[in-house]
Amino acid sequence: MEEITRDFLYALSADISGRQDDRLKTRLSELHPADIADIFDRLEEEEVQYLWKLIDIEERGDVLVELEEDVREGLLSTLSTREIAEEVLENIDSDDAADVVGELPEERAAEVIAELDTEDREDLLSLLRYPEGTAGALMGTELIRVELEWTVTQAIREMRKQAEEVETFHSVYVVNAAGQLIGRLSLKRLLLTATSARSTIGDLFKEDDTRTVKVDDPDEKVVQVMKKYDLVALPVVDDHNRLLGRITIDDVVDLMEEEAEKDYQLASGLSDEVESDDTLWTMTRARLPWLLIGLFGGLAGAYVIGWFDIERFPSMALFIPLIAAMGGNVGVQSAAIVVQGLASGRTPADARLAPRLLKEFSVALLNGAICAGVILGASLILGYGWNLSLTVSTALIAVIIFAALFGTFVPLALDQLKIDPALATGPFITTANDIIGLIIYFGIGVLMSVGG
Amino acid sequence: MEEITRDFLYALSADISGRQDDRLKTRLSELHPADIADIFDRLEEEEVQYLWKLIDIEERGDVLVELEEDVREGLLSTLSTREIAEEVLENIDSDDAADVVGELPEERAAEVIAELDTEDREDLLSLLRYPEGTAGALMGTELIRVELEWTVTQAIREMRKQAEEVETFHSVYVVNAAGQLIGRLSLKRLLLTATSARSTIGDLFKEDDTRTVKVDDPDEKVVQVMKKYDLVALPVVDDHNRLLGRITIDDVVDLMEEEAEKDYQLASGLSDEVESDDTLWTMTRARLPWLLIGLFGGLAGAYVIGWFDIERFPSMALFIPLIAAMGGNVGVQSAAIVVQGLASGRTPADARLAPRLLKEFSVALLNGAICAGVILGASLILGYGWNLSLTVSTALIAVIIFAALFGTFVPLALDQLKIDPALATGPFITTANDIIGLIIYFGIGVLMSVGG
Repeated sequence: MEEITRDFLYALSADISGRQDDRLKTRLSELHPADIADIFDRLEEEEVQYLWKLIDIEERGDVLVELEEDVREGLLSTLSTREIAEEVLENIDSDDAADVVGELPEERAAEVIAELDTEDREDLLSLLRYPEGTAGALMGTELIRVELEWTVTQAIREMRKQAEEVETFHSVYVVNAAGQLIGRLSLKRLLLTATSARSTIGDLFKEDDTRTVKVDDPDEKVVQVMKKYDLVALPVVDDHNRLLGRITIDDVVDLMEEEAEKDYQLASGLSDEVESDDTLWTMTRARLPWLLIGLFGGLAGAYVIGWFDIERFPSMALFIPLIAAMGGNVGVQSAAIVVQGLASGRTPADARLAPRLLKEFSVALLNGAICAGVILGASLILGYGWNLSLTVSTALIAVIIFAALFGTFVPLALDQLKIDPALATGPFITTANDIIGLIIYFGIGVLMSVGG
Repeated sequence: MEEITRDFLYALSADISGRQDDRLKTRLSELHPADIADIFDRLEEEEVQYLWKLIDIEERGDVLVELEEDVREGLLSTLSTREIAEEVLENIDSDDAADVVGELPEERAAEVIAELDTEDREDLLSLLRYPEGTAGALMGTELIRVELEWTVTQAIREMRKQAEEVETFHSVYVVNAAGQLIGRLSLKRLLLTATSARSTIGDLFKEDDTRTVKVDDPDEKVVQVMKKYDLVALPVVDDHNRLLGRITIDDVVDLMEEEAEKDYQLASGLSDEVESDDTLWTMTRARLPWLLIGLFGGLAGAYVIGWFDIERFPSMALFIPLIAAMGGNVGVQSAAIVVQGLASGRTPADARLAPRLLKEFSVALLNGAICAGVILGASLILGYGWNLSLTVSTALIAVIIFAALFGTFVPLALDQLKIDPALATGPFITTANDIIGLIIYFGIGVLMSVGG
């Protein structure tokens, strides 16, 4: 991997200012499209536009699909619809083409599609029909298919033709005359099995258990199948088992990464993908929603404390941070276990709620008892007196148990309602548990009349 | 993908109790090893041991490597060293074999290795030498290599021989007589290019830019290279560019997932991988460390509040939860952005600290000003009076700015010290910011003498 140093970027910027086109072309031609994209992500907009024209036409599309979304959007807005169609879309896989067109404003997308030749246009329009989040939206149509009755010689001749459109492939899909998928033939088998002139694909091909997904299967299923069976490509079929396209592992890797980042962001209270080099306003906007939720949670907390008449029991104030923090921590832990279980598919679809809550209750009871014991001992040693120490430790057990059950229940409930359970992690759980924790703490305080 | 239902598991358990070996064998032979592993993960230990003997010998190894670690450990402890060597290790890839042996107790591992034939033993011993976390520890030695000078016919004959040991492969590695990697030849090219009887591999092969990693490169680099260049297999070389092995994308997918889960766990305050079906004690142990940290943070908070003499300024208590929560939330957000940037490789290695902190300062100032404005207005409307409202909003800006800088600085510093920056997220940042937030809040309170 090329390490893109700051020095290299300076040299590049200097060449751009000096209009050293020949040197720039040489530099670019030595780089992989993914490396050019990395460089573009770190240059000024005008520099990107300038360099774009110096990249080999065949490679422009590959660079474009690797760019970060905002950089790509900026670049696309400077290209004509004809340039997008001819320089970009015709040189990339159909699934990437559909993604690029999907990012364009609607009117412009229609203009770009009109510039394509009939075959590419039909391909693209059919892909754009599949809703986001389904196997159809992930698949590309570039694949190699051979029919069961073909001789091997005929198949190889057909494959040479098909291969012009397909950059890399690892298996050949075997279909019957109706276009239904029969199975997969590995290139290894095709290459290494001795055949006679009259051998057919059917002779080579052994009935196998090729995995497929339906075109409207959700993309979580695609990820699970490819991961579980260690696949590099997964064929996509319609309801009649007709072969429509294939999904490649690199797209699934990207998808997995996005999902993991999104869950992580939600757990950390970021509402959007942000990077250190985003603008001030983008960074602020990604953080503000959760901060405002925390703010109103804080106001609610103030109301609870005021309601319980803190002025009469001022020593109760000492342990407010402890109660609030522990409720939040426990809730986040419990929610995270559920979210991870659901995301990895380890939590079976038919899991029942009651045994989970019971288990969570036992874990919380054990954790709560240990923590309460520690805090009782510590606060007595520190001289906070029996009344306050007992109140705090009793409240702590109650808060830990409540927070654990709440943290388990909410993401499971969201999942049942088809809402992303990761929303329940982070500030949401923390804030809710803060308030409820305070109510429990002061409620117990009043019962034990600490201040009395 | 086979959906493993509870009904299926019940039927299986019933067949095991009834010793219906024939029916069980048929059931198992219809399942993919990954599905059998899924089933084993959900059965009792004795049931797993019983079914193990009924799986086709050739498939046992594939099932074993797909098991969850604790289930695998349980099963391995019931097998003899000879069974492990002959039924498991000889039927799986060398990288998986090294992982399995690496999980065994040292003495037992040595006994198992002694049972292997010379070639497998040497292979395995060489793989076990590479430290965890390097490309060497990820790679397998199964690959197809041809020499540049061979004719295509000769190469195909050699490939047939080598292919007996290699289950799936997508490219053929071209080496020179010294074993140095020259490049990669795709099966597509080999299959679809017309050759004469005297064509050599050198004629077919075009100088390409095959990506490689060194055997001691860290696994983060492996992940980055494979992801960036969309590779399904990555050759591993030594310092003299001699081909040692290859890393496949399925192992990298597993690694990515583990890393993402670990970061997520740290951010949520879990110290270990836990799943809903772990034992009570495992689940408790994974959560307790961070809870104890939170507990001592809470005690420190109590000390701070006591020090500032809360009894004189009881109304200050009302906003303790708000200040603590906001400091924690902001700190976690800032730390998460750094951790994600570092993990994805988006944060360049030569990034400087000063501009980052400056940017973080600006974002925090903007967020702080907005939040302080909201809280000032809200608390005045709710009748908390000018003194308290001003104290809270001033403290809030200060806390938000401090928490943001602290949250940015700590993971960057840890990364510089080669400690996992994700350790800085979650309860650690929250707890530290709680305490410092309280000091700032009460400090400002005393300066403005709210209670006076």
